[in-house]
Amino acid sequence: MEFIGEKTQDGVTRREFRLAVDGDAVPGVIWAPEGAKGPRPLILLGHGGSQHKKVANLTAAAISHAQKLGYATLAIDAPGHGDRITREQAEKARAAAAEAGRKAQQGERPQAAARPTRDAGVALKHVAEWTAALDAAQGLDFVGAGQPVGYWGVSMGTRFGVPFVAQEPRITAAIFGLFGVFPGLEDHKAAAEAIRIPLMFIYQWEDELMTREQGLALFSAFGSTEKTMHINPGRHVEIPAHERDGWLGFWERHLGRA
Amino acid sequence: MEFIGEKTQDGVTRREFRLAVDGDAVPGVIWAPEGAKGPRPLILLGHGGSQHKKVANLTAAAISHAQKLGYATLAIDAPGHGDRITREQAEKARAAAAEAGRKAQQGERPQAAARPTRDAGVALKHVAEWTAALDAAQGLDFVGAGQPVGYWGVSMGTRFGVPFVAQEPRITAAIFGLFGVFPGLEDHKAAAEAIRIPLMFIYQWEDELMTREQGLALFSAFGSTEKTMHINPGRHVEIPAHERDGWLGFWERHLGRA
Repeated sequence: MEFIGEKTQDGVTRREFRLAVDGDAVPGVIWAPEGAKGPRPLILLGHGGSQHKKVANLTAAAISHAQKLGYATLAIDAPGHGDRITREQAEKARAAAAEAGRKAQQGERPQAAARPTRDAGVALKHVAEWTAALDAAQGLDFVGAGQPVGYWGVSMGTRFGVPFVAQEPRITAAIFGLFGVFPGLEDHKAAAEAIRIPLMFIYQWEDELMTREQGLALFSAFGSTEKTMHINPGRHVEIPAHERDGWLGFWERHLGRA
Repeated sequence: MEFIGEKTQDGVTRREFRLAVDGDAVPGVIWAPEGAKGPRPLILLGHGGSQHKKVANLTAAAISHAQKLGYATLAIDAPGHGDRITREQAEKARAAAAEAGRKAQQGERPQAAARPTRDAGVALKHVAEWTAALDAAQGLDFVGAGQPVGYWGVSMGTRFGVPFVAQEPRITAAIFGLFGVFPGLEDHKAAAEAIRIPLMFIYQWEDELMTREQGLALFSAFGSTEKTMHINPGRHVEIPAHERDGWLGFWERHLGRA
């Protein structure tokens, strides 16, 4: 874990890093309360498709975790995202995602929008990166090992997060959403069935990228005895603001306070 | 509103009353912080089938509202429930509900369990009682008029609550659940479609008294733009404890603090 930048604002310190994993330099960022010392709960944030590790909703969540709960929060760029591609490639990917969303609203239900994330090889690679990032974070004095760890990720963050969480015993609670059971992704469904930790699953009732039945099927598949699905009106990217407050309560209930 | 008893415990005063509505003496109870003076938000609690106005979960909710938010809370016995029937009749009704539940778990999906509440005449009568109770409560110095009013009721509390809330402009937010769209209850679905206030809808994924599709159809029917459905594993009466904390947050967000 090589630190390459640090910035403190509003009582929260954000450190950028690069982490060598299987020959790649994975770009990451970790937030913690300013001057944080000693172990504390950690939350891992998996960003959505065409997004990156410091996208607005991830940054806002990380700041809340630090300010309100005293947690550390870590995010990494997924393969083909953020600082792992050029600015031109990122803009092209965002435009393609926006176009797929437009087509979907017109009734074409494009598997295409999520297709780059459907590759099993990419998923395996990114799971290994998450494991390495968690190892590295637990070596930091302001995180430590043995503390509760949560995973949050919706949409592509659920596509990669489910196989990661299914085989990572250090994760003690998770928030997923905006993903479903899809043809050709049987491994993903099997991973969901293997998960036993408390979890929340967020879904949008007018999601243009997937059907209601696909989301309900993924919620049903999770093996957890404590799981709760929150359905709200609106499209894929329209999760209402009040859910964010609920997430803080979920973390406090399951991970405690720092 | 004739008060017939008062008891104060743990900083909460519970007053029992009877209210004359259309020739009936409707038994009710209102809780408020000890020594409460001046207007404050009010929550109306609709109990479930075979239950009554002071059943454990309603009493616990009312005490929380008073202690944590400073609210007043009111509950009345539905027709054929609580002090409106003899103890023998109540025990018989509870036994019948338990028996219907057992049969339902064995695969017989009994419309019977909820049948007494399906009568449109009973619903109209109880809606009039709720309206009268709200009128009377707003005449009390520790409730007043013009403050936000919430309605909470699941199962039979949703069967009667939906037509009440649909035609009561003083209700500003509601929590419903454990009910669905059923054949022969088209008026109920139409009332749900007419509701426009923020609401939460609680559902149990293994509810033995109704199907997943029936619950999802009722959630979909509500006309509110802000509505959120929380689905949890388990049977009809197994709403997990963590939802209760969420309800307090929902009230605080929509009704404010006293």
